[in-house]
Amino acid sequence: MTEPVAFHATPRFPRGFRCASRNVGLKPSARDLTLFASDRDAAAAAVFTRNHFPGAPVILGRETLRAGVLRAVIANSKVSNVATGQAGVDNARRMARAAALELGTTADKVLVSSTGVIGVPLPIEKIERGVVGMTAELQDDPMVGAEGIMTTDSHPKALSASVGEATITWVAKGSGMIEPNMATMLSYIFTDAALDAATLDRLLREAVSGTFNMLSVDTDTSTSDTCAILANGAAGPVDEAEFLRVLRAGCTRMTEVLARDGEGAEHLLRVSVRGALTALEARVVAKSIVNSPLVKTMVHGADPNVGRLLMAVGKCFTCTIVPASTDAWINGFQVVGRGERLAFDDAVVRETLSREVVDIEVSLGVGDGSATAYGCDLTKGYVDENAAYYSS
Amino acid sequence: MTEPVAFHATPRFPRGFRCASRNVGLKPSARDLTLFASDRDAAAAAVFTRNHFPGAPVILGRETLRAGVLRAVIANSKVSNVATGQAGVDNARRMARAAALELGTTADKVLVSSTGVIGVPLPIEKIERGVVGMTAELQDDPMVGAEGIMTTDSHPKALSASVGEATITWVAKGSGMIEPNMATMLSYIFTDAALDAATLDRLLREAVSGTFNMLSVDTDTSTSDTCAILANGAAGPVDEAEFLRVLRAGCTRMTEVLARDGEGAEHLLRVSVRGALTALEARVVAKSIVNSPLVKTMVHGADPNVGRLLMAVGKCFTCTIVPASTDAWINGFQVVGRGERLAFDDAVVRETLSREVVDIEVSLGVGDGSATAYGCDLTKGYVDENAAYYSS
Repeated sequence: MTEPVAFHATPRFPRGFRCASRNVGLKPSARDLTLFASDRDAAAAAVFTRNHFPGAPVILGRETLRAGVLRAVIANSKVSNVATGQAGVDNARRMARAAALELGTTADKVLVSSTGVIGVPLPIEKIERGVVGMTAELQDDPMVGAEGIMTTDSHPKALSASVGEATITWVAKGSGMIEPNMATMLSYIFTDAALDAATLDRLLREAVSGTFNMLSVDTDTSTSDTCAILANGAAGPVDEAEFLRVLRAGCTRMTEVLARDGEGAEHLLRVSVRGALTALEARVVAKSIVNSPLVKTMVHGADPNVGRLLMAVGKCFTCTIVPASTDAWINGFQVVGRGERLAFDDAVVRETLSREVVDIEVSLGVGDGSATAYGCDLTKGYVDENAAYYSS
Repeated sequence: MTEPVAFHATPRFPRGFRCASRNVGLKPSARDLTLFASDRDAAAAAVFTRNHFPGAPVILGRETLRAGVLRAVIANSKVSNVATGQAGVDNARRMARAAALELGTTADKVLVSSTGVIGVPLPIEKIERGVVGMTAELQDDPMVGAEGIMTTDSHPKALSASVGEATITWVAKGSGMIEPNMATMLSYIFTDAALDAATLDRLLREAVSGTFNMLSVDTDTSTSDTCAILANGAAGPVDEAEFLRVLRAGCTRMTEVLARDGEGAEHLLRVSVRGALTALEARVVAKSIVNSPLVKTMVHGADPNVGRLLMAVGKCFTCTIVPASTDAWINGFQVVGRGERLAFDDAVVRETLSREVVDIEVSLGVGDGSATAYGCDLTKGYVDENAAYYSS
């Protein structure tokens, strides 16, 4: 067993990183434009959405990341600049140029992100005017940047932890349209460790695979998903294995934070599957359970309707499922044995389901593949938020 | 163009079929046990759920259908007899024997179905006692049987239509845990046409493929899905092509009725995809849209947030999607052209989204595969019903 990772009580930036955020008129009054900047060039890597309709910032971001060097990230909320054609890509380039001009760098070292409504032209003039003077406002609290990228998130999300002399800081936003397939909606990781771009790319993909890519709020894969890591080297070299361990721990924690703050969510749902034929099959089964509307409403209602767990396992048609070897637990209480519902104390399991964090474990008994998926309950709050998102 | 199929104003049974239903104490007072009977042996075929945890009635039903002959169907609601092990299968056999004894036939000619809560022992004694005397109550209205198999359905569901001298009658129940993968929850089709079991099997699979198998209320595949067809030959031979045409039309209509009565639903959502590379890809894209919680809440909120349509198309990672050739329409109004959101009259599209039936069409422009999927909106009613289903 390795030591658990200790996150800082108050999140802080690695050496050389700062941020600022402002309202520039995209939202009525909340902060809607954010700048993250390094005081020197940082090696960088990123993973983006696999959605076939990537937003203009994702199209541009793939191009920008090819060189593996970033100085800054500029991100706006409210309008996602997706499904906006060539004009959208042109606007994303203008946004990179505006940030570069403000920071005294070049546009090819600025990652652009936009999050919000799809299919609406980006108000680029507001952003170009709005970014002017932000350099003077750059400060040390990552929460300020986290606040600037929120959409329907109920709170800003940032974490930090140490790796030797270096620091890793995570800043993310989530909430809805979340079943990342490469990364979560927007997630930025900053570090002052000295790591080259190729190493960062490999470590990021390793960390994301079991964390952000196992998160689902609603099965809907965003067109803007972006997870980028910037390493400016200010703290010098680090032990790579330890760096990966902390990186993975922070991605896991941030995944849980995003799941718990899923639109309308009242519970964090963690589903661990073991004994699958392969790791891939474990992922499929864990995702099937965490995404099942009937499991999600069961958690919401704190009702131990364990047949729904079996249903969600059983609908994984492509996986090897043997009812007679399938067991399941809810928060540590075994509720299914050899494919049959066990007699259990209904009141006790009901109480345990009402806790904020609900852990479902399934043992398939056919191999040694395992995986954990992260999600949340399905509530009337989700329906409320999404039946009126566009107009709001 | 062929003639549209005219359904009878009041559904009726084919010659030789009757049904009865009763309360036998599984529910407080509603009908919970139903018997459908033919006055002679009927050729029969059925398709069942692909869920890895099939209910005991499905396990037994697969065995029963091997001979291709049925005299009756006995179905109870409230308890599904799923995840109940060998005792469950034994109880399903006892249920078949009880019906056979009552009707004067043998248990191997009785199809058993159970629908309701998973993982609860079937109260078989209540069923054995309750079925006694039901033969005397057999009558001609299929709605009586439809009422007896309801769970959370808001109304009983039956249809009938003529094929030459013969009649086809559909009786079904649906509501939740519905993304059939072979058939919908429980759907029985009765006809007096003379068709052998092998032909029935082939025609049933053809009809189900584009209808019940394209229905999804909530992506959750039931452990009890059963769609059976019984043909007792009382009306003599029919034209097979015409029979299939009417069979498919009735399955389509019943699919729409089931989708519209999905748990909490206020709209029927029909999603037609054309121009896909293959028919299979068209099915994947149509299902992705009809199952997207963000599309479903958009329909519920009557809010033309067309970016969500593109998102749902774009997350079909395994399909050929070319943004520049993708168009989309909502109730006939084009909202997406060449992958971009078009300018459209928001108020008009909003009004059209508030209609009971919402048609979404997507043209992918990369081939000639097409498919239609059937679903419903996602409402607070769905959350309400399913956060408290077990206890109710």
